[in-house]
Amino acid sequence: MSLLFAAPGWDEGFWLKRFAALLPGRAFVTPQTLADRAAVRYAIAWRPPRGLLADLPRLEAIFSLGAGVDHILSDPRLPDVPIARIVDPDLTARMSEWVALHCLMHLRQTRRYERQQRERMWDDDDDQPAARDVRVGILGFGELGRDAAGKLAALGFQVAAWSASAKSAPGIACFDGAAGLEAMLARADILVCLLPLTAATRGILNASLFARLPREGRLGGAVLINAGRGGLQVEADILAALDSGALKGASLDVFETEPLPKDSRLWTHPAVYVSPHNSAISHPDAVARAIAEQIQAHERGEPLRNVVDRKKGY
Amino acid sequence: MSLLFAAPGWDEGFWLKRFAALLPGRAFVTPQTLADRAAVRYAIAWRPPRGLLADLPRLEAIFSLGAGVDHILSDPRLPDVPIARIVDPDLTARMSEWVALHCLMHLRQTRRYERQQRERMWDDDDDQPAARDVRVGILGFGELGRDAAGKLAALGFQVAAWSASAKSAPGIACFDGAAGLEAMLARADILVCLLPLTAATRGILNASLFARLPREGRLGGAVLINAGRGGLQVEADILAALDSGALKGASLDVFETEPLPKDSRLWTHPAVYVSPHNSAISHPDAVARAIAEQIQAHERGEPLRNVVDRKKGY
Repeated sequence: MSLLFAAPGWDEGFWLKRFAALLPGRAFVTPQTLADRAAVRYAIAWRPPRGLLADLPRLEAIFSLGAGVDHILSDPRLPDVPIARIVDPDLTARMSEWVALHCLMHLRQTRRYERQQRERMWDDDDDQPAARDVRVGILGFGELGRDAAGKLAALGFQVAAWSASAKSAPGIACFDGAAGLEAMLARADILVCLLPLTAATRGILNASLFARLPREGRLGGAVLINAGRGGLQVEADILAALDSGALKGASLDVFETEPLPKDSRLWTHPAVYVSPHNSAISHPDAVARAIAEQIQAHERGEPLRNVVDRKKGY
Repeated sequence: MSLLFAAPGWDEGFWLKRFAALLPGRAFVTPQTLADRAAVRYAIAWRPPRGLLADLPRLEAIFSLGAGVDHILSDPRLPDVPIARIVDPDLTARMSEWVALHCLMHLRQTRRYERQQRERMWDDDDDQPAARDVRVGILGFGELGRDAAGKLAALGFQVAAWSASAKSAPGIACFDGAAGLEAMLARADILVCLLPLTAATRGILNASLFARLPREGRLGGAVLINAGRGGLQVEADILAALDSGALKGASLDVFETEPLPKDSRLWTHPAVYVSPHNSAISHPDAVARAIAEQIQAHERGEPLRNVVDRKKGY
C-alpha cells in the first residue's frame, strides 16, 4: 500500500519527510518513483500531471494540497474517487488579512502617501472617505468569503456578498443567483473575488462585469481585488477598464499565467498592486497535518470531510 | 454675547459658516475681530494664541476642535473654566482604520512586495507569520485604544493594552501602572501609541522604552506605530533604534515638528512610513455639530460632556 505525492515543482524531500513523520510505516512514491500502480491507495496532489491519476486501480481518494481543486478537476482522465480539499483556519485567516489589507490600502490611498513620502511632500487629505462610506461586495461566500466579510464589517465597511446558492450571515447583505449578482455588482465600490475556478466562473472578471460596477462611489471609481484564481480574470479587460475609468484600481494576487510574465503591463500600472500568489500560503505543517488526519480518519471508517462536489466544481 | 473661534491657520470663513448655520442668531468673533472681551461666552479653539483666552471675564467653556487638548492646556495663562474635547465615533473609526492598515502593512511586508513589483520580481514568501503569531501592544486605552484593540483582535492579532488606570475589555490583555507597562512592552511585537500628550507622557517613546521591546518576535524585531502626538516621541531615538535593530520598522503619523521638516531622515528611511497627521481627520460637519450640541445642551442647563481632567491632562 502506498501514497502518491504528485506536486510538480514542489520540494518533494521536504514534504515527504513531513508526511512520513505524520503517517509512519507507509510507503510514499512520486510520479518518478511510481512502479506498482496497484499499490497506490491515496494521491496527494497539486497540479498533478494530466492522466497520472488514471489507471490506479485501488485509488481510494485524492487530497488537494490547497483550498482549490481546479488544478485536479481539469484532468480529463480523472478517476471517479472522492477529492478532498484543504479547509484550514490558518489559510482562511491569512486570506482575510490580505483582503483587509488591500481594502484598507485602497481606502486610505497608500500609493498616494507612499509617493508623497518619496517626494517629502506634506499634504493631508481633508475629504477622505471612511470605511463606513465604502461598499464592499464579495464574490464567493464559502469559508474564505464568510471570514473576510466578517472582518471587513468589523472594520466598518458596508459589506455584501454573492454566492451561487442562497446564504445568510449577520450584518452582511447576501445575494445569490443571476439577479442577485447584478444587484451586488451595482453597489460594489470594492469588488473582492474569492470564487473557486469552475467552468461557470472562468473569465467572469471581464469587461462586461466591470461595466456593471458603480463609478459614483466614494473611492472615485470601482476597485477590483482578486485573490481567487488567475483563470477568473481577463487581464486585457482589467487593463482596458483601468485605462477607461471603469476600474479605479486593482489588487491582484493571481494571474492568467504565473509567475506573471515580465512584459505584463500589470507590473507597472500605477493603480495596480501585484502580489506573487501569496495572499494565503498555508503553513506546510497545517496542510500535512490536515491531510494525514483525513487519511487516518478514513481508515477508521469515518467519512471524508470537505469532499468536492464535481458538478459544482468546488 | 459672542463665540470666539481661535484656530490659527484654519479656514475661518469655512468654519464660521458651519457654526453660524448650527447656532443661528449668535455673534462670532476671531482673534482679529475680538473687540468686546466681556461679550465672549464660549471659545472654540485649536492651538489658540498663548494668553488669548485669559481676560475674558464671562467665558463659560472652551471647546477643543479635536480629541486632544494638549494644545490648549499648554497655555500658562489658561483661565479656570471647563475644557471639553471632541469624542467623535467617526474620528475613532478612522483612527482604527489607519492603525489596522499599518499593523497589516508591517505584518504582510508591503514595502517588500512594492519593491518586488517595481523590479518585476515574482518571489513569494513561504515563512510568513500570520496575525495570530504577532503580539500588538497598545499604549493608551481610551476611546481610540479600545476601538483599535477590538478591531485588531478581530483580525487575529494577539492584543494587549496599557493604560494609566486599570481597565478591562473582553479578549484584550489589560495592563496598568509602572509594572504593567514593563510587562506589556516585553510582549509588544508591534507597539501602537494612542496616548494623550501630557507632562507624564511627553517623550515617552524614547531609547529607554525601545530597549524594553522584544527582538525575538515573529516580525524579526519590534515595530513602532505612533498616531498620538509628535511630542510623545523622540525622533533622534527612533532613528537610532532603527539603525541599531532595537526597532525593525515604524509608522508615524505625528512628529515633533509638523509639517515634518524636509531634512528629516524619517522621510527616506526604508523602514519608516510617514503620513501627514491625517490618520483620523474628523469630518468638519461632525466636529461642528458636536460642539454646537454641547453649547445648546449647556444652555438648557445640562452638564458638559467629555470635560478634561486638568490634573491628568486629558
